Amino acid sequence: MTEQIDTIKLAHGGGGSLMQELIQKEIIPVLGGTGLNGLADSARLDVGAGALAFTTDSFVVKPVIFPGGDIGRLAVAGTVNDLAARGAKPLALSLAMIIEEGLPMATFRQILASVASTAREAGVEIVTGDTKVVEKGEAEGVFLTTSGIGQMRAGLDFGPERIEPGDVVIVNGTLGDHGIAVMSVREGLRFVSPVKSDVAPLAGMVDAVLDACGDAVKCMTDPTRGGVASNLNEMAQKVGYVLDEQTIPVRPEVRGACEMLGLDVLTVANEGKMLMVVAPEAVDKAIEALKGHPLGRNAVVLGVADGQAKRVRIKTSIGGERIIDTPYGEELPRIC
Amino acid sequence: MTEQIDTIKLAHGGGGSLMQELIQKEIIPVLGGTGLNGLADSARLDVGAGALAFTTDSFVVKPVIFPGGDIGRLAVAGTVNDLAARGAKPLALSLAMIIEEGLPMATFRQILASVASTAREAGVEIVTGDTKVVEKGEAEGVFLTTSGIGQMRAGLDFGPERIEPGDVVIVNGTLGDHGIAVMSVREGLRFVSPVKSDVAPLAGMVDAVLDACGDAVKCMTDPTRGGVASNLNEMAQKVGYVLDEQTIPVRPEVRGACEMLGLDVLTVANEGKMLMVVAPEAVDKAIEALKGHPLGRNAVVLGVADGQAKRVRIKTSIGGERIIDTPYGEELPRIC
Repeated sequence: MTEQIDTIKLAHGGGGSLMQELIQKEIIPVLGGTGLNGLADSARLDVGAGALAFTTDSFVVKPVIFPGGDIGRLAVAGTVNDLAARGAKPLALSLAMIIEEGLPMATFRQILASVASTAREAGVEIVTGDTKVVEKGEAEGVFLTTSGIGQMRAGLDFGPERIEPGDVVIVNGTLGDHGIAVMSVREGLRFVSPVKSDVAPLAGMVDAVLDACGDAVKCMTDPTRGGVASNLNEMAQKVGYVLDEQTIPVRPEVRGACEMLGLDVLTVANEGKMLMVVAPEAVDKAIEALKGHPLGRNAVVLGVADGQAKRVRIKTSIGGERIIDTPYGEELPRIC
Repeated sequence: MTEQIDTIKLAHGGGGSLMQELIQKEIIPVLGGTGLNGLADSARLDVGAGALAFTTDSFVVKPVIFPGGDIGRLAVAGTVNDLAARGAKPLALSLAMIIEEGLPMATFRQILASVASTAREAGVEIVTGDTKVVEKGEAEGVFLTTSGIGQMRAGLDFGPERIEPGDVVIVNGTLGDHGIAVMSVREGLRFVSPVKSDVAPLAGMVDAVLDACGDAVKCMTDPTRGGVASNLNEMAQKVGYVLDEQTIPVRPEVRGACEMLGLDVLTVANEGKMLMVVAPEAVDKAIEALKGHPLGRNAVVLGVADGQAKRVRIKTSIGGERIIDTPYGEELPRIC
């Protein structure tokens, strides 16, 4: 093969020599540094006895490259964050790609490089993968599916059933950045300072909080699709939550874009945020641990759990109150 | 929600209440029996110390329902077989779905039911999942990605580096059935007795052979995309292989279809076949173990390893010999 190939062909997904060449020349050199060793259909992991967390997510974001990130960073961060929310240290990730024929090789390379750099940032290896190619028009550039295995911390258990009235919801920064960053490209919105996605792997930051607070952390969840509104409602089984509109952390540009698009920022996706519900006595320690990590500098209290089970309420800036329901669907489709 | 919904909507993938309803009403009742418990983004697995195998595959077969199976059965069997080829007992599977808006709910239900029944047949649980929906025209019905974790048998190791001249390649039945079954729908081929896909989970059958033969089994591989030609060439590092055209197991209808379509059956995908390379003294025991399993009734010797490294040769019925190369790409795209 001396032919110069500048786009992905159907045959790249065909299980033959062109696919092996793609894997050997394009994929392994980039992901190899993270742990991917060869063409084997499965990877071997040596683990100690104990509990593992196992998670999977597909990513179909449109466009595949957006301000502040791309689908590669999104896929790795999304899976790392699902593990982190479970209190699990990421051990290994898999990467399955469904590529649309005609995808420029330059885009493919950029996404792979982003997978590799995000995996390194998160301290996790891509150990196995798969590549399929579909005809032009039958995917949107590329879809990625990452699965992850993590080692759960011994002695810690998280879940909404542990949350009690008086517990405090903390978030590590501003809301809505990812959804608005993606939407701004699709809608052609212009900002004086462009909104960038917050997409980031949060395992290290979560570790810092767990080291500081241990089991005073009751529950964690990353507010992606459906936003904070969806996740708070999911955690509102035994308790409810009260938020104060004036202290919700939102960038002015994001607030403006939400007003223009008619969106509630609480329903907009985040990809670098973790909601952590902690016992009241641990709030200061948790915030301090967060602020000591680059991804938690803007950590704040978002709200407080109360006894009104299954209700998420927000005190508005004009002194009223409204209920935040689980959104019906996504107000911004194809955001992740 | 009393509305009757008969197709998948974009909002079904939106992270809101419609998605939760889809998961609670359609997905958990079907997959719940296999281990999926709820809405959590990750599953907990309790494992003993040791080696795990981890694998992932995306499935983009077109059409999604074909003679002898569908994409749901294909996805579960494909991942189970990758684990089985590693000598690993499947412990848990994940299922990520990328669904095209407008997919009939009846098709969705049929595929899910097939996932569940194939998982039960393989003795493995679907423990976690994800659902995304993309706009009409931006996927082809549904794409599935399954990842799997398996427990590796202690003391057994498989790999092409263990294969020596004189070792024997065994296959558990006829070749090319899956590829031709899928292609027959796409090309409108008619057969007197229709060709059905061989798609099946092979973990139990492989177990039977390993119980009988132990480490006399040197290497296993499932010849999917690229067919036997691709897999034998991958295993031809230290050795080569010689096949006899007259003893290659092929159904007459498949042979006829291959001739009509100009295909070499050795490059056509299988989804219920395992190539097992065994030491010569274990061949009879291996064949006996295979024939004792419903999926191995037609097991035969496919070929023999020899010292001509990196060459896969076939003795033709007219007394000649030809080289079987790794195919360049897939001759039948979108077959899995």
